[in-house]
Amino acid sequence: MSLLVLKFGGTSVADLERIRNVAAHVKREVDGGNACAVVVSAMAGQTNQLVALVEEAWGYKVRSQNGAAASAHYDTREYDAVVSSGEQVTSGLLALVLQAAGVQARSWQGWQIPLRTDAAHRAARITGVEVGELKARMLDGEVAVIAGFQGIAPGNRIATLGRGGSDTSAVALAAALQADRCDIYTDVDGVYTTDPRVVPKAHRLDRISYEEMLEMASQGAKVLQTRSVELAMQKGVRVLVRSSFDAPDLAGKGDAETGGGLGTLVCHEDEIVEQNVVSGIAYARDEAKVTLLKVADKPGVAAQVFGPLAEAHINVDMIVQNVSDDGRHTDMTFTVQSADLDRALEVLRNSKDSIGYLDLRGSTDIAKVSAIGVGMRSHAGVAAQMFSALAEKGINIEAISTSEIKISVLIDAAYAELAVRTLHSLFGLDR
Amino acid sequence: MSLLVLKFGGTSVADLERIRNVAAHVKREVDGGNACAVVVSAMAGQTNQLVALVEEAWGYKVRSQNGAAASAHYDTREYDAVVSSGEQVTSGLLALVLQAAGVQARSWQGWQIPLRTDAAHRAARITGVEVGELKARMLDGEVAVIAGFQGIAPGNRIATLGRGGSDTSAVALAAALQADRCDIYTDVDGVYTTDPRVVPKAHRLDRISYEEMLEMASQGAKVLQTRSVELAMQKGVRVLVRSSFDAPDLAGKGDAETGGGLGTLVCHEDEIVEQNVVSGIAYARDEAKVTLLKVADKPGVAAQVFGPLAEAHINVDMIVQNVSDDGRHTDMTFTVQSADLDRALEVLRNSKDSIGYLDLRGSTDIAKVSAIGVGMRSHAGVAAQMFSALAEKGINIEAISTSEIKISVLIDAAYAELAVRTLHSLFGLDR
Repeated sequence: MSLLVLKFGGTSVADLERIRNVAAHVKREVDGGNACAVVVSAMAGQTNQLVALVEEAWGYKVRSQNGAAASAHYDTREYDAVVSSGEQVTSGLLALVLQAAGVQARSWQGWQIPLRTDAAHRAARITGVEVGELKARMLDGEVAVIAGFQGIAPGNRIATLGRGGSDTSAVALAAALQADRCDIYTDVDGVYTTDPRVVPKAHRLDRISYEEMLEMASQGAKVLQTRSVELAMQKGVRVLVRSSFDAPDLAGKGDAETGGGLGTLVCHEDEIVEQNVVSGIAYARDEAKVTLLKVADKPGVAAQVFGPLAEAHINVDMIVQNVSDDGRHTDMTFTVQSADLDRALEVLRNSKDSIGYLDLRGSTDIAKVSAIGVGMRSHAGVAAQMFSALAEKGINIEAISTSEIKISVLIDAAYAELAVRTLHSLFGLDR
Repeated sequence: MSLLVLKFGGTSVADLERIRNVAAHVKREVDGGNACAVVVSAMAGQTNQLVALVEEAWGYKVRSQNGAAASAHYDTREYDAVVSSGEQVTSGLLALVLQAAGVQARSWQGWQIPLRTDAAHRAARITGVEVGELKARMLDGEVAVIAGFQGIAPGNRIATLGRGGSDTSAVALAAALQADRCDIYTDVDGVYTTDPRVVPKAHRLDRISYEEMLEMASQGAKVLQTRSVELAMQKGVRVLVRSSFDAPDLAGKGDAETGGGLGTLVCHEDEIVEQNVVSGIAYARDEAKVTLLKVADKPGVAAQVFGPLAEAHINVDMIVQNVSDDGRHTDMTFTVQSADLDRALEVLRNSKDSIGYLDLRGSTDIAKVSAIGVGMRSHAGVAAQMFSALAEKGINIEAISTSEIKISVLIDAAYAELAVRTLHSLFGLDR
């Protein structure tokens, strides 16, 4: 018998037909003799509807329409009370569907487990999961159906974990339960070497290391939430990414080691026998470029630029500072999330006097393309290979950032697909 | 300063515009210096949608369509988890709308208060309300916005109180808080002498006693849930029934004694100075008549008829047994809820051998009309007056039931309006 955590996202529980399909997956694992906890998201679209209600309640939309500054500073504890109801509904429905299929099951809300969080409502972090009763009942043969995305904060209030938080719920539960595996069922059948819509020759990876998965998630692959990968790495939780649309009876027989050869296992790199230098190519189009022209080239200027942005909770990703032409001025380029661009420009305009620059430009016509692989650690020259392959295709690199296992380049958005295909071939990933 | 509980039903919180109207009512009371708790139902229609999801999850509809016997024996704890989410949403939204209007407020789920119930999920009874923290915060100026219809059962599971349970939530809270008044805001502006759609001369009662209100509710008036009136009577909670559609600024200034002369105050009969003999005429069309022909007239036959019905959880209301013609057989007539008629007939058909009867008939073409008033206790001859007035109009009485403060008659449904108008005039209630 293995102890498994299964997580199903919003599209997998979008209606009762799909919830029945989820139940079939769960039943297969139960029939295979496994003790199961199932973490569910809200039905697809439900969370957006609830968020819209909250914003309308606070007058967010009305004020935006009037042209006045919109304020999102509503009471996030109430946001959490409203928005968490979506997962409450699906957890109860799945428990009923499982019972109707003859599987013992009960629903658990975050506060019932309890899954404890800090007080950062709407984006809370998990501080502890008390699984005593839950685990005892699982080992007794009862499936625990858990409302994802939520826990209980100090003060006895419901807290949500932020968008995509159900992945994190699942991994945290798997860690607390010392589960053999955490299966993340999603709408793709695993982690690919790159987006198959861009590169038809992309293939699914059987295994990927935590470090690589973390870079893939951070660099634009949507398959897992970054925080959940961090947590899995930290706690050593084996995560299997697989498709909820596979026929339940064909979808493996619950082999605790690999999940029956389906999906992609996210695990420690020691478990991966044959390691490519580069495991995958990620790309992101949701970044925007900000350029400050003729900034004073003096100590402290970076703090004057990035301090106000940090205060406005705007994350800055890549930063490039050109060599000074005249020894007194330089150009500075960096990227932010596209959604933050207008706000970033406003912050910088308001700080123009303290920073001192000639002009300010913003653009969203950029893409970030990244090559990722733990093999880079032991292979020199990967960056050089990458830059020359892009140069051969006439693709100009606007900025570069690297880590031990990743090289990212910022390029003109028009060349994004070409760059991804070029790098996918270059590093031997085409099948 | 008074301590008030305000309750708003589903139509009063049907959308955000109406929730803003609710907030205006609450703000008026807060501005008047009162400490307020507000109990809310789910948005109109929401509970029905959630119930439909539960039934579909359990396969209820699918089985019904297949012609097989439908089973409602799903896990009511999961029903409660799903269905209680409707009130969770409105409580959070109203708290936000109040905050946006500058009123300090927070939402409370049943389990957060806690409002404790027994384990009879889907129709739980309140066993206790711990208002320590809630009341302290109310007296500190924070409006408590409470998800109605729900509490927490033994075993830490959410329990709902059954349809219309938010009225009961409000009264139970008012009792626990020792509130000065419990205002039930609804879609009518109070309790009427009878249904104004049937009798245009009906008028709103300024006050009505608990006993009368209880009979009115039991006999068909929909304005308050029966259980909430019982609880108010038992705990001595002063209940004001008023309209949520009144302009908030005109709707009284929070006079704890009477609520500013608006609505109908449900209170102890000692508080009612001028008491009519009859206070109101109620009628119900949702009952059905069952007649057993030629039942053996012997001891124990009633038990053989009503035992199986009780086992099937079918409530029987009025019962008439005719005088035996031949000393050996009699006809027996009784009423059940229309919704239970088919099931009642099936139960009786299955028990035909043990009961022994010639024929079985069911009909829904009946109405029950009731005259209600505590004044009956000290006035003889009310029943006689009533029967002769109906006889004058040619209305045949098929069955009679009485209590100390009520006389009900069962008549042909076609005469229901005529009977109500006749009795309304007879007892001097026309305005």
